[in-house]
Amino acid sequence: MTRWGKNYYMNTQNIIGYALIPPTGKSFRAMSPASDTELAGDFHVATTTDADAAMQLADKAFAVYRHTDAKTKAAFLRSIAEGITALGDELLNRCAAESGLPIPRLTGERGRTTGQLNMYANLLEEGSWVDAVIDTAIPDRTPLPRVDIRKMLVPVGPAVVFGASNFPMAFSVAGGDTVSALAAGCPVVVKAHPAHPGASALVAEVIMQAAQKHGLPDGVFSHLFDDGYAVGEALVKHPKTKIVTFTGSLKGGMALVKMARERDEPIPVFAEMGSTNPVILLPQALENRAEELAKTYSESVTMSAGQFCTNPGLLLAVKSEGLDRFKTALGAGIANVASATMLTAGICSNYQKLSKERLGNEAVNIVGKADKLNTENQNQALAVVSEISAADFLADDKFKEEVFGPYSMLIVADDMAQLEEVVGYLHGQLTATIMAEREELALYKPIIDKLSNLAGRVILNGPPTGVEVGNAMQHGGPFPATSDSRFTSVGTGAIKRFVRPVAWQNWDNDLLPDALKDENPLGIWRLFNNEWSRK
Amino acid sequence: MTRWGKNYYMNTQNIIGYALIPPTGKSFRAMSPASDTELAGDFHVATTTDADAAMQLADKAFAVYRHTDAKTKAAFLRSIAEGITALGDELLNRCAAESGLPIPRLTGERGRTTGQLNMYANLLEEGSWVDAVIDTAIPDRTPLPRVDIRKMLVPVGPAVVFGASNFPMAFSVAGGDTVSALAAGCPVVVKAHPAHPGASALVAEVIMQAAQKHGLPDGVFSHLFDDGYAVGEALVKHPKTKIVTFTGSLKGGMALVKMARERDEPIPVFAEMGSTNPVILLPQALENRAEELAKTYSESVTMSAGQFCTNPGLLLAVKSEGLDRFKTALGAGIANVASATMLTAGICSNYQKLSKERLGNEAVNIVGKADKLNTENQNQALAVVSEISAADFLADDKFKEEVFGPYSMLIVADDMAQLEEVVGYLHGQLTATIMAEREELALYKPIIDKLSNLAGRVILNGPPTGVEVGNAMQHGGPFPATSDSRFTSVGTGAIKRFVRPVAWQNWDNDLLPDALKDENPLGIWRLFNNEWSRK
Repeated sequence: MTRWGKNYYMNTQNIIGYALIPPTGKSFRAMSPASDTELAGDFHVATTTDADAAMQLADKAFAVYRHTDAKTKAAFLRSIAEGITALGDELLNRCAAESGLPIPRLTGERGRTTGQLNMYANLLEEGSWVDAVIDTAIPDRTPLPRVDIRKMLVPVGPAVVFGASNFPMAFSVAGGDTVSALAAGCPVVVKAHPAHPGASALVAEVIMQAAQKHGLPDGVFSHLFDDGYAVGEALVKHPKTKIVTFTGSLKGGMALVKMARERDEPIPVFAEMGSTNPVILLPQALENRAEELAKTYSESVTMSAGQFCTNPGLLLAVKSEGLDRFKTALGAGIANVASATMLTAGICSNYQKLSKERLGNEAVNIVGKADKLNTENQNQALAVVSEISAADFLADDKFKEEVFGPYSMLIVADDMAQLEEVVGYLHGQLTATIMAEREELALYKPIIDKLSNLAGRVILNGPPTGVEVGNAMQHGGPFPATSDSRFTSVGTGAIKRFVRPVAWQNWDNDLLPDALKDENPLGIWRLFNNEWSRK
Repeated sequence: MTRWGKNYYMNTQNIIGYALIPPTGKSFRAMSPASDTELAGDFHVATTTDADAAMQLADKAFAVYRHTDAKTKAAFLRSIAEGITALGDELLNRCAAESGLPIPRLTGERGRTTGQLNMYANLLEEGSWVDAVIDTAIPDRTPLPRVDIRKMLVPVGPAVVFGASNFPMAFSVAGGDTVSALAAGCPVVVKAHPAHPGASALVAEVIMQAAQKHGLPDGVFSHLFDDGYAVGEALVKHPKTKIVTFTGSLKGGMALVKMARERDEPIPVFAEMGSTNPVILLPQALENRAEELAKTYSESVTMSAGQFCTNPGLLLAVKSEGLDRFKTALGAGIANVASATMLTAGICSNYQKLSKERLGNEAVNIVGKADKLNTENQNQALAVVSEISAADFLADDKFKEEVFGPYSMLIVADDMAQLEEVVGYLHGQLTATIMAEREELALYKPIIDKLSNLAGRVILNGPPTGVEVGNAMQHGGPFPATSDSRFTSVGTGAIKRFVRPVAWQNWDNDLLPDALKDENPLGIWRLFNNEWSRK
């Protein structure tokens, strides 16, 4: 235990179910990226034996937790949200110290995190998410009678969740992956991200206490630290693991995907990986409001040091006088942006290296570059918007790759046909955006069409950053944006990753799960003999 | 072209869109498994160049077909059903000659095939399957306004469908995979199964004509022959292919899965592979109705020479006097079953080899064996029910594997605890069945629970064979039953394999797809601001 702030102690130990694991000797500390110094707390490195114990216990817990009623699960999620809120400034301060992210941004992220938990509690209480479908028997059907069949979604089993570095709350220990898995009825083993072990420990403790409070089975949640790869690998390869979620780099995601595929029993990995989030600036919009667009994008590119997965990394436009004004205004806007602390020293040096490489390429010019370096803090990223001709972009695959950080590249096409060629050449994306005047959209239908075929979310006249957490959100997209475009990792739809349909055939009414009983005791929406109803 | 029957000619050429591909020289013939002789028709082996051309054309067609309205798609599917019916006895006879399956079984399968097509036409006309979700803007929400977001399912792109040998219509050229892909809006390239090229050719012609009749884009459907693996491999590896479906062996399915994963852009393969479909016979049921159960299972095991994917390959029971009576009756029942022609000589010799190996194992005894060999026909399978102790079954992993054909193994446990251990040791399954008296079910909840965690469909008091095609069907299950337990290959749910959600953010109402417009012009069920409605 390490004291953190006035009122809290962080559990620096690994948690397996309701047990704190005695230290084995190896530990690591969090680094403050702003100061490049160690933060308090010796976090104990878990062993592969711990990973095995956590998965075995999760599997035992699953036998109970898969039948835990919706009300109890909802109350559990609400208690986690309350616990996170109760951590108050201690959590925000620790997050800020570990991530370098500013307090206002983290306050918003905390709201999103507790909002997600409460949203899933509501979803469970409403109950219709299980997609109940009922076809009752037709004994006198010819040539063959129809037997009674009823289907609903059930949890797949223990989930392994990797905490993400860029959202130390909303995509971490009690983030979207954990909450959607727990809501589905899957126990969760979190592999904490080593960049924010303190924030992870504080939240893990909250989840453990909430699970105890609601009498949930031992093992419904475990939390393991590792500053290396051994524990993560052991978790993904463990026979009791049934699904893995990850948010991070393409390289990291694909390494997990590969491991999961090579198991005796291959399992799905939902990996949200890289995305350059192309933004198309149509000619009329540039002509009419170049300066306004420049303002929007100088803010969007630099938000949280460009470390959002929806950061607009590519801007596409056709040469024009309006584009020249946009470039001038964007260049001026970017120059005024102060440097920002990146999440880790590694991420920062990678950003410096990649952006330097890009800018050193003779095909690449600079549109604008931030020059207000904060010399008091370390690991500072200065935003850059660069420029390349469409022909040069098309000539080299490496320009398609993401530069993680406040880096954006403007691709300048000679005409709309060439711009469309660039769109056709892009990889799968989380988002694709069009900035346009209403009257010009009809002219570019094929481009709009290509964008909606490329991405999980298509945006008109808005920045791709700012991901709404709700029913209609799709945060996912064709490879390499994610490992499976058929799912989302944000919003209520994220629960679908952790469930599979099971059909009950010819069971007596009282033996069926409540969601499938004739009298619909849960009052949920069901497809009953081909009619939607709540009766 | 080869004449087949009185009124039909089979196209023995490959079809790419609306073009018949000129022969390149290599061809193969179908074999009659009943006579081990060649059937009429020299089917031209496609080349990898043909595979490329088919996928390129499918991709072009996709740009149009993904927007084809539901009414047109529905009419297309209905025309295919009418065309298949119009082929009349010619199709049934050719299927029978190529597959060795009896005409009554094939007549049923044809009904299922046209039924599936019409079911999907209904689904499209009703329209709610796109899962439209709408969250309208809340400009005055604090701390941040909510932007308008609307989500629906859209097709992923060109699909490659492998015809299956065991259902020459219902899981072949116009089978469940093709129809659900076409319904979703995905062009389909079928790799015809070489065991029934004639039946495939007849149906492919029907689809081509139906596509033309409804003015669908060239390339919405293609049909390629190959008696080897080169064409299938080229199709799966082709960059324009976005999803693959397959029904067949574990080995074949996993080979495709591996190929699809190793692409630059990995794509999903929905492979339905092996399943032993365990059936648990509870003690009271055995005591009360051993003979009736024996009758049910002697029919279920031997149906279509045990070549259904839901064939009950494992029976589990605890030693008892009732079980002895069941064994006696089942042995007598099986002995009376006539031999049946298997689908191909290869499948038959594999069945002979595997069943001989099993029976040669000293842990395995015979409960019953068919001995009425039809000496007029070739490739005959005689049904066998064997027996093994639970301890011996648990001692060797090979007994878990499927023997494709009319082979079933009774696992005899000393007590219920040992039976439960066997259930815990089984692989994922398409189906799991319990034969029980009502009053004893409450005693064995943990076993029932384990079964529902193991399989896609759990059946009470009925044989697993006979797969209802409807909304509530789940034909899929944990690995190795399928490559992804979250999907089904039978019923309306099968369409979900071919679609992904896309969210539109901040679009004007008239620019949105009809399914997402404010006024709901399609009149479909939608989740509108968290309320289900058809308004």
